[in-house]
Amino acid sequence: MTVQNPHVTVQEVGLRDGAQSIARTIPTVVKQRWIDAAYAAGVRHMEVASFVPARLLPQMADADAVIAHALSLPGLIVTALVPNLKGAEKALASGVHKIVAPISVSAAHSMANVRKTPQAMIDEFHKIVELRDSAGAACTTRIVAGLSTVFGCTLQGEVALPDVCEIVRLAVAAGADVIALADTTGHATPAQVGDVIDAVRTVAAGKLTSLHFHDTRGMGLANTVIALQRGIREFDASLAGLGGCPHAPGATGNVVAEDLIFMLESMGYRTGIDLPRLIEMRAILEQALPGEPLYGFIARAGLPDYFAGVQREPKGITA
Amino acid sequence: MTVQNPHVTVQEVGLRDGAQSIARTIPTVVKQRWIDAAYAAGVRHMEVASFVPARLLPQMADADAVIAHALSLPGLIVTALVPNLKGAEKALASGVHKIVAPISVSAAHSMANVRKTPQAMIDEFHKIVELRDSAGAACTTRIVAGLSTVFGCTLQGEVALPDVCEIVRLAVAAGADVIALADTTGHATPAQVGDVIDAVRTVAAGKLTSLHFHDTRGMGLANTVIALQRGIREFDASLAGLGGCPHAPGATGNVVAEDLIFMLESMGYRTGIDLPRLIEMRAILEQALPGEPLYGFIARAGLPDYFAGVQREPKGITA
Repeated sequence: MTVQNPHVTVQEVGLRDGAQSIARTIPTVVKQRWIDAAYAAGVRHMEVASFVPARLLPQMADADAVIAHALSLPGLIVTALVPNLKGAEKALASGVHKIVAPISVSAAHSMANVRKTPQAMIDEFHKIVELRDSAGAACTTRIVAGLSTVFGCTLQGEVALPDVCEIVRLAVAAGADVIALADTTGHATPAQVGDVIDAVRTVAAGKLTSLHFHDTRGMGLANTVIALQRGIREFDASLAGLGGCPHAPGATGNVVAEDLIFMLESMGYRTGIDLPRLIEMRAILEQALPGEPLYGFIARAGLPDYFAGVQREPKGITA
Repeated sequence: MTVQNPHVTVQEVGLRDGAQSIARTIPTVVKQRWIDAAYAAGVRHMEVASFVPARLLPQMADADAVIAHALSLPGLIVTALVPNLKGAEKALASGVHKIVAPISVSAAHSMANVRKTPQAMIDEFHKIVELRDSAGAACTTRIVAGLSTVFGCTLQGEVALPDVCEIVRLAVAAGADVIALADTTGHATPAQVGDVIDAVRTVAAGKLTSLHFHDTRGMGLANTVIALQRGIREFDASLAGLGGCPHAPGATGNVVAEDLIFMLESMGYRTGIDLPRLIEMRAILEQALPGEPLYGFIARAGLPDYFAGVQREPKGITA
């Protein structure tokens, strides 16, 4: 099978979505080592911090230092999450390439997460876009509307597709450069992913480019297959699936980057990421976070003997 | 999305593929309890034993008793695995509905598994079919060619698709009623699954109806999605993913039945299996096999609150 548009972007979000989910704080130097190792393995998109009050999330108190380090690596596209305008001011000042603001479709989750209704968060989002625009053409930071709880919500239950589409419509109207859909609580299932992408596209004006799956119920890769068939070429994932939803004890968090990349490369997609090297990176987490569960099938089972041939140039050329 | 041909058969194979993979022997009474509980949850297809010499696989010494019990349950379709003609004689005598004979595409695996080359195993398979036929029209036992190592092999490495097609062609010529493809060592990836199904169909004369995935590398459900899109409606799985490939320590074995059924039902397919009840069944394994790893995302994360609505009749009708 020949793959159409084979390049797929895998954005490593462990330093944001993963780090915020664990109780202890990862030392800044370890975060920098993590970024360096991911970069060395070929990762070129990372969400590395969020600008939230340090009293709420001490794990993110070093956001500026972490971002400054990430921005020192040529070609690395750096994203920060912001829950509000104040965070966006700091993020813009930090110089990140992308800002993602979470807009929950579930009102219950929105209140719990950002203490605002979805409509109030749309207003805040609009202010964030205006702030970016006020900086003039020199500011090229892109503003991503990160829709949360798109596929279901632990607090609210089912999330209606018309509600999703309405938030997408409002986010586009508010100036979103990109619409990203997140399965915050691991509810998405494959047929639903297809339905949601189809529906959102009718209102997203071509801006739906990125998906963020959690693997709470083991559907992450199956969901990804459907999204790939729909032309999506950007996915979030985290090293060792770091993190986890507090509402689903024992469940893994984000899709495991190693497993996702294995699947993509084996399907003929190209991520630019050296998978054996990425797997070696898990040692950094093991050392820095002893006892923290590290997930992933590939790291446990190993790559097939012949996998190196999938990713690397034929041996004869360089040897 | 409306699903075409929504009924999907999930064959529980834990008592064969799972039980043979663990060192200890499951007492016959526990196997019977397992069968009863699966049946009560709606499972109607089970592979419950294999007819191999008890000195090689003492876990299967009670095959006759286990099969007799399974056959006592109305409507339960009972399968046994046989590696050779001698096993087939016993299986036919036991009265099972289906006999599956493994034919490895990988010569290395074939020698290790049944001590025969693939061609010699085809000859044996032909004798099995003849034996069944010699019993006359009263014998309705179906003979399944269970192709192993179709998607790769730990011993051989890559398995060439023309080799797969040739074995399929020979198995059909030898009288196979059904062609089932097995990813014995967990090498299959989604694009490959599509390619293999397409190629095998050109020689399988409509007999390719069943797939058997292992989840060693976490691809089991993603592979299933592709197979569903190709019209496959029968999948093997085991409760709690019991088992594991000896060549991939720590990796899960078969696709976890609970996760597979969750995915299928959430996609609009119908398995006839009561998932909450199946999940409760894990207690039998926990009790009988203390310390044995039980896999599965759904059992750990729980079903979404609204899942009951997917499977069961609207509450108003029966309450």
